[in-house]
Amino acid sequence: MDLNPITYKNNIVYMLDQRKIPLETTFFQARNHEEVIFAIEDMIIRGAPAIGVAGAFAFLLAAKNGQSLSHASFFEHMEKAGLDINKARPTAVNLSWAVERMARVMNQSKGESVSTIIEALEKEALLIQKEDIEINKSLGKHGATLVPDKAKIMTHCNAGALATAGYGTALGVIRRAHETGKAIHVYVNETRPRLQGARLTAFELQKDSIPCTLIVDSVAAVLMKKGLVDMIVVGADRIAANGDVANKIGTFMLSQLAHIFQIPFYVAAPVSTIDFSSESGEDIVIEERSSKEVTHIEDLKVAPTGIDVYNPAFDCTEAKYITALITEKGIIHKPNYNSLSSLQHE
Amino acid sequence: MDLNPITYKNNIVYMLDQRKIPLETTFFQARNHEEVIFAIEDMIIRGAPAIGVAGAFAFLLAAKNGQSLSHASFFEHMEKAGLDINKARPTAVNLSWAVERMARVMNQSKGESVSTIIEALEKEALLIQKEDIEINKSLGKHGATLVPDKAKIMTHCNAGALATAGYGTALGVIRRAHETGKAIHVYVNETRPRLQGARLTAFELQKDSIPCTLIVDSVAAVLMKKGLVDMIVVGADRIAANGDVANKIGTFMLSQLAHIFQIPFYVAAPVSTIDFSSESGEDIVIEERSSKEVTHIEDLKVAPTGIDVYNPAFDCTEAKYITALITEKGIIHKPNYNSLSSLQHE
Repeated sequence: MDLNPITYKNNIVYMLDQRKIPLETTFFQARNHEEVIFAIEDMIIRGAPAIGVAGAFAFLLAAKNGQSLSHASFFEHMEKAGLDINKARPTAVNLSWAVERMARVMNQSKGESVSTIIEALEKEALLIQKEDIEINKSLGKHGATLVPDKAKIMTHCNAGALATAGYGTALGVIRRAHETGKAIHVYVNETRPRLQGARLTAFELQKDSIPCTLIVDSVAAVLMKKGLVDMIVVGADRIAANGDVANKIGTFMLSQLAHIFQIPFYVAAPVSTIDFSSESGEDIVIEERSSKEVTHIEDLKVAPTGIDVYNPAFDCTEAKYITALITEKGIIHKPNYNSLSSLQHE
Repeated sequence: MDLNPITYKNNIVYMLDQRKIPLETTFFQARNHEEVIFAIEDMIIRGAPAIGVAGAFAFLLAAKNGQSLSHASFFEHMEKAGLDINKARPTAVNLSWAVERMARVMNQSKGESVSTIIEALEKEALLIQKEDIEINKSLGKHGATLVPDKAKIMTHCNAGALATAGYGTALGVIRRAHETGKAIHVYVNETRPRLQGARLTAFELQKDSIPCTLIVDSVAAVLMKKGLVDMIVVGADRIAANGDVANKIGTFMLSQLAHIFQIPFYVAAPVSTIDFSSESGEDIVIEERSSKEVTHIEDLKVAPTGIDVYNPAFDCTEAKYITALITEKGIIHKPNYNSLSSLQHE
């Protein structure tokens, strides 16, 4: 399958509208950075690496729309745009990572004309996109070595092609294992409240003819007890310097069950997901989203009016519960401060 | 709140249509046992004690509709009706318990006329209903002694007034604690796939002004880790002779997390839920329901067409993970074969 969640062409960013998958395949068009911010906030595009790429393109669109400004006004305009893009969603670090990378390129060409700067930014955004796919393929290759033949693999949320520039992180590992002929079977947790497992992961696996079974999240424990899960692989939204992982709500639950049933628990993520400025998971801001995500499914009301809701979008899993971190640079067994900081300095 | 999920009047069984709560309060009317069976299968009425009461009324309707039969044909007709009612749902033992109790009354008056037998059956069905409410109130009184003031209590699915003839089992404990002035707060797991937590438990607690917060099921682990859960109380669909408990899917997951975080895990159920013919949980048939419960929410499609689904309605929790069983006869700490069989012989 060639699933392209984000494409840039002629000053427009096209994003596959993931709110409508699997029912419709339509594209949302953003012509300025505000529209990309809306797409990120409303989860038209989601997944840490994908919103990193979207952030880079948002920065580029901001620059393009500021091309007639004076040199000084352009930099002012871009500073504000960068801050706004960064705020679109708080937990995934890839957003600020991409904005910082774009800002660095901009500042390196500070002496040049605005149009030359924009040219450099366009090159950089496209490079970030291209690199992300390469990173996922490399990560997939490393990760697939951990997958035994006939493995029954559980995954949560969507860390697939749709969550990245393409191919996927956790699903990159699964794709690569499948491509190399391993007879795997995937258990897909539906992932309430936004149902990214049911809507997106099941869709991706079905398109690639990878055998899979969809379950509600609480069935995970039953499958593990029955010995039907050989390994768990999930993505990450932010990894602290000590190896603690913030990822989709439900990941922590899985890590605890994996611990009880002694099932390997893997996190697949590019090195750009590691936030060396967060010492541990406690420093990571966990986004709380609207109660409507729980009380309604699309427009269908499933809870009484006015009920109190606690709806954290992510949770945090301590490094000690992570069997290995799978990155594009290789596999880090039992990730910790030392093994992660070696990645920073490579 | 006076929530009456099931009422019998003038040869009609009125059942609150729980598929439509909290949006609508309408009643489904059953005029024969087949219509009650449909109501049980389609979950118009659900919850082990409530479907026990429904089973008793179904048996009564079958008898009423067979009143013009000869004595011999009446007994043949009733044997078939009893078998059909028993098959409506497989896991909750209360259904066969109620049918057996009705059949016993029928057989005790075997020498009488059909109309006298029907009179005895009507009395018995109404008694089963009345006793269920009394049992829940007694169970609630015992259970509430386990609830500390200011307790933060987690519950799963709906073991409330709607799951019984009234008052509730797990929610009976919670109601009683609230009625006696304890400042409790309840965390309600939404309980996928049928969302009985969001639809029914949140509705009941809100109506009784019991402070509560709704969460998706996988948030339970996060709350436990944060120290925000002082105790967990759930109902049961069938309890094996050794104390293993079959209950709504997700219960096993909660028991495992409770074990990790050392949180008391209570099961509240009438003695009629104990199936002394099931030696352990392994003997309990776990109902698998339609994949559509997972791929669709009402008519809204949330997964790709043709995806494989595993949808067990219940799971089994071993007795060793249950801190105490709360019954109408008292609290059984660390339930096991011996303590349960003492209940049988009381």
